[in-house]
Amino acid sequence: MTTPRPFLSDNAAAVHPRVWEAMRAADEPDNPYDGDALSRELDARFTALFGRECAALWVASGTAANCLALGTMVAPHGAVVCHREAHIEVDEGGAPGFFLHGAKLMLAEGEGAKLTPEGIAALIDPIRDDVHQVQPHAIAITQASEYGRSYQPAELAALGAFARSRRLGLHMDGARFANAAAFLGGSAAEAARAASGSVDSLAFGFIKNGGMGAEAVVLFHPDAPPQVRYRRKRAGHLQCKGRYLAAQIIAMLDGGLWLANAAHANAAAQEVAAGCADRLLHPVEANELFVRLTAAEREALRAQGFAFYDWGAESARFVTAWNTRAEDAAALGKAIAAL
Amino acid sequence: MTTPRPFLSDNAAAVHPRVWEAMRAADEPDNPYDGDALSRELDARFTALFGRECAALWVASGTAANCLALGTMVAPHGAVVCHREAHIEVDEGGAPGFFLHGAKLMLAEGEGAKLTPEGIAALIDPIRDDVHQVQPHAIAITQASEYGRSYQPAELAALGAFARSRRLGLHMDGARFANAAAFLGGSAAEAARAASGSVDSLAFGFIKNGGMGAEAVVLFHPDAPPQVRYRRKRAGHLQCKGRYLAAQIIAMLDGGLWLANAAHANAAAQEVAAGCADRLLHPVEANELFVRLTAAEREALRAQGFAFYDWGAESARFVTAWNTRAEDAAALGKAIAAL
Amino acid sequence: MTTPRPFLSDNAAAVHPRVWEAMRAADEPDNPYDGDALSRELDARFTALFGRECAALWVASGTAANCLALGTMVAPHGAVVCHREAHIEVDEGGAPGFFLHGAKLMLAEGEGAKLTPEGIAALIDPIRDDVHQVQPHAIAITQASEYGRSYQPAELAALGAFARSRRLGLHMDGARFANAAAFLGGSAAEAARAASGSVDSLAFGFIKNGGMGAEAVVLFHPDAPPQVRYRRKRAGHLQCKGRYLAAQIIAMLDGGLWLANAAHANAAAQEVAAGCADRLLHPVEANELFVRLTAAEREALRAQGFAFYDWGAESARFVTAWNTRAEDAAALGKAIAAL
Amino acid sequence: MTTPRPFLSDNAAAVHPRVWEAMRAADEPDNPYDGDALSRELDARFTALFGRECAALWVASGTAANCLALGTMVAPHGAVVCHREAHIEVDEGGAPGFFLHGAKLMLAEGEGAKLTPEGIAALIDPIRDDVHQVQPHAIAITQASEYGRSYQPAELAALGAFARSRRLGLHMDGARFANAAAFLGGSAAEAARAASGSVDSLAFGFIKNGGMGAEAVVLFHPDAPPQVRYRRKRAGHLQCKGRYLAAQIIAMLDGGLWLANAAHANAAAQEVAAGCADRLLHPVEANELFVRLTAAEREALRAQGFAFYDWGAESARFVTAWNTRAEDAAALGKAIAAL
Repeated sequence: MTTPRPFLSDNAAAVHPRVWEAMRAADEPDNPYDGDALSRELDARFTALFGRECAALWVASGTAANCLALGTMVAPHGAVVCHREAHIEVDEGGAPGFFLHGAKLMLAEGEGAKLTPEGIAALIDPIRDDVHQVQPHAIAITQASEYGRSYQPAELAALGAFARSRRLGLHMDGARFANAAAFLGGSAAEAARAASGSVDSLAFGFIKNGGMGAEAVVLFHPDAPPQVRYRRKRAGHLQCKGRYLAAQIIAMLDGGLWLANAAHANAAAQEVAAGCADRLLHPVEANELFVRLTAAEREALRAQGFAFYDWGAESARFVTAWNTRAEDAAALGKAIAAL
Repeated sequence: MTTPRPFLSDNAAAVHPRVWEAMRAADEPDNPYDGDALSRELDARFTALFGRECAALWVASGTAANCLALGTMVAPHGAVVCHREAHIEVDEGGAPGFFLHGAKLMLAEGEGAKLTPEGIAALIDPIRDDVHQVQPHAIAITQASEYGRSYQPAELAALGAFARSRRLGLHMDGARFANAAAFLGGSAAEAARAASGSVDSLAFGFIKNGGMGAEAVVLFHPDAPPQVRYRRKRAGHLQCKGRYLAAQIIAMLDGGLWLANAAHANAAAQEVAAGCADRLLHPVEANELFVRLTAAEREALRAQGFAFYDWGAESARFVTAWNTRAEDAAALGKAIAAL
Repeated sequence: MTTPRPFLSDNAAAVHPRVWEAMRAADEPDNPYDGDALSRELDARFTALFGRECAALWVASGTAANCLALGTMVAPHGAVVCHREAHIEVDEGGAPGFFLHGAKLMLAEGEGAKLTPEGIAALIDPIRDDVHQVQPHAIAITQASEYGRSYQPAELAALGAFARSRRLGLHMDGARFANAAAFLGGSAAEAARAASGSVDSLAFGFIKNGGMGAEAVVLFHPDAPPQVRYRRKRAGHLQCKGRYLAAQIIAMLDGGLWLANAAHANAAAQEVAAGCADRLLHPVEANELFVRLTAAEREALRAQGFAFYDWGAESARFVTAWNTRAEDAAALGKAIAAL
Repeated sequence: MTTPRPFLSDNAAAVHPRVWEAMRAADEPDNPYDGDALSRELDARFTALFGRECAALWVASGTAANCLALGTMVAPHGAVVCHREAHIEVDEGGAPGFFLHGAKLMLAEGEGAKLTPEGIAALIDPIRDDVHQVQPHAIAITQASEYGRSYQPAELAALGAFARSRRLGLHMDGARFANAAAFLGGSAAEAARAASGSVDSLAFGFIKNGGMGAEAVVLFHPDAPPQVRYRRKRAGHLQCKGRYLAAQIIAMLDGGLWLANAAHANAAAQEVAAGCADRLLHPVEANELFVRLTAAEREALRAQGFAFYDWGAESARFVTAWNTRAEDAAALGKAIAAL
């Protein structure tokens, strides 16, 4: 019998040993909620990483992180512009409508689930500036995108300039921010800054990258923090043993573990890609592959022990993780090539 | 120098070793969200414990648990009756207003932060049955109460009958449900059933009792589950590595760990109470003590290494936990007696 | 100088004399809110008109009428399927998001701003039945549509059957319901029944048809009324001198004034259409015309005193009303023909 | 048989002839919504009246007016301090919870349903400045109060200073603002300024004072207007024939009709009061009387044709209006005196 070789998703991968260690160390008594020493360290840690003043809060899910960040920019009568296939539109159970008290998502187009100033302008320029029409208050982009595409610094600069010119906030859903940063390259600080551009807020994901249940809401705009702390509590997301969440994040930041884990996953994805370049629906710029495969081909792969999701009728999605074994990635690449 | 002897709160206590073990074991790959084997076990485990059909979901905080449960009973235009000093009114940052879309809390009186049918009737009977006045849709009680009082089975029966007679839902905030159950006594099943009466929903707390970040929403009314699962997701509370939350709960249920931990905390509270019976503001029926102490007396205790919160100007609150050392409890009792 | 000949919109037309009379008669003292004799008459009046049991409430705007009706069918975590160009999506300032507590609008396609079972199925069939995706709870159609198209009874029957088969509510935005009914023909009862099919709720518009500030929310599903009355109050829409709103509606129902007014407007629209059949973007099935006209042609018409809105760069919208003068309609038709 | 002599409420009184005239005159065509000449006049009219820059919008109910004004000051995670018996708490069907997206009402005490800095401080000073507790964002007072008491300028000045010192907004529910102003005396401008003090917003009531369905939201703080216009639309309160609402308000402002009508009602109330000074529960400072009367006495009065509401078991409420006949007021005073 074949051992299962998992390419289903990074979102169910095991927790990294260094994260476990840090959590165990947090057993030492400290203050509840976010009054503990680890939680109080977060602002400084992320400020150092990004090289600009920010506030950082842990929450237990990317959905909460995105929505709390957006809540600092978007009034209930406003809207968020996002891609038609953005996670906040498609896969978060309507959470933005809840957290933003009925604000709207406006759906823009863009290749590879990436937004461009042109795509956004095409959507929002026809909106009349009157009370009958909901006005956009912010833009949300996903780094890496829902199709595993990474925004380049020049693309981020263009989006940042566009957002400022329209007085819109700019939020980044970074569920796989680490993978984009690793793709862009450089030291931890270099990669983090390149991958984030000049966004106003970032949902910095750790869970898919070796954490257990902690993401960081990173707010670069100075007025937001007090409000967002109240709203985190109000949403039931201020856990009382918060030090176990802070510990996860700090373990990931220490020694650039977040970047190393992501680089590992990206490398595994490239290993697979090497075997199926001609079948790829999107360039592989993070840790996801979208591969043209017939039903029969998918069945053949599953018979060899590869686990993955169908992606429509004619393709499949493969996701690598911080703990994907190199031999599994190589085997998958070869298996696809051999089809 | 004196070692700190913590009686601040059970909400920041360490995680129990058996909970740690169960979480580590959950590193084995499984489905994301609540599709894993452990999460799928919860309905059956709680049904067995309570002896009546129920659905059970993990969430990361008591605030979320209370609000999601109440959301199954209370429309946005309705209200929840709770005690004036209930946690949902005083300490949850307005979360019910958020989760219930603006529904109201109506504040009833009752000794020891416990509600009675009479107290509730005094509040709601004057409400005219017309659209100008918000109508109550549910009652929320806290077991054990905010003053460490436990509802007796007869009291619960009376509240249950009252709620049904008025067609109101009945929810129990069980942040310290285990302590109330341990106070009432019996086997795990006996204690659980005695302490819960015939409530429609229960926020069964594990975090204060040796867990890390998992409470159970237990729904005894048959129509609620599908809706509440959508609303958990929508509130950002469907964590993707949910098996680590389910593991905590199951570890607590296994072998009645939840009851043993609570019995330990209760015993420590009784040990303290033995030294200050004449100073108690409320009978000790769980793991909290409210003790009349002057500022000078509180200072004297702190000088001996005891950590605790002031409770107004003339008293203090002491909370014991699953890991309170017997010698610390005894020492505290003696120290108060010696004042 | 030319007298202005208004084809801008029916929504700013004067109030019909019989409506004025009825309002003046309502000066007689009666109970406040909806406790007056006229308001209490509404259920019976609409039940008689539609030939099936219903509850009917006045509100001051179509936006409120649509949203209150939808609120009886759509939970905060659900969605309403509507046309991409539906008024509730495009022109109500995000009101559905507010009244439905963050529920979503899902945008379907269809010719002439009309929905079909096929168009809806194409939108909702790909939605996975899991908590990550918002589920549709209701369908909203507009009769007559935003392009002045009227659903035929067979089309309504198909939509009704589809909605029931998917367990979705079916709401009709009837801001110009009267014009659709008049287009379909027959007596008041025949026309009303033909134009409404088997919808669960109808926002029956009177304001565009000679009223001042009263629309009717008509609810055909038996469980809705109590809740909707609470929600009308909660939205600030239970006016204290409600008898002046009820009076408007009853004046419009008396002697079929609603149908006569609409027939007048429709006839004027046909008069215009006769002069520009080759330029029409949509068949004229109510009281709106969308006419291909260059900028120069539009300018020429305006120079002749015709007032109307541009509709994109290459066309214009003309709306007739209950008080459009026959000579103005004829003149407009001729003027366009003469271009 | 006795003609009914109505003292039930001013909220169902007939519409004043000059209001009718102004509405009829509004039949002339103009722009829809608030684009008409009359609506555009409101800012200037109220700025002139109050002698300080303000924006003014019509809405159809006091509930909407209060909630829209409060929405400019209170975030969803905040609270409004109001009197325990304030209309927004007791009689608006939970509208503040809806319009403010779950914000809370905090209930202060105060004689005659009037708030004082001391009463508010007693409520809010114990609130810890942390995220677990909802923080007050604004204060709402009612002028005249729910017991017909009018705040004096000195009282308003103290409340204004207190609100500013705590960085709280200050809103005035002025459903009977005109009656308070008339009680305080002076010209229209003098009375309006004296009765409003330095509030940030005012719901200026006209409906109870001879209008039909139009109140004014008056905003004195400069940042509010754009947002509130979006929120009015979003709440379904931007009526398309808005000129009929603006006409009502302007008719009331013209020649100080609002003040004359209120003075008439107040005088009638004083006439009644003259007959029952020893039975009054509250000083009569507007147009409401709360009178100690046994059930038998109430029955006797009703037998003489007086219509009014019971107020608890041992008293009754009488309300005079702009059209209360002097002889009816005199008769009521005498009838009570004769009991």
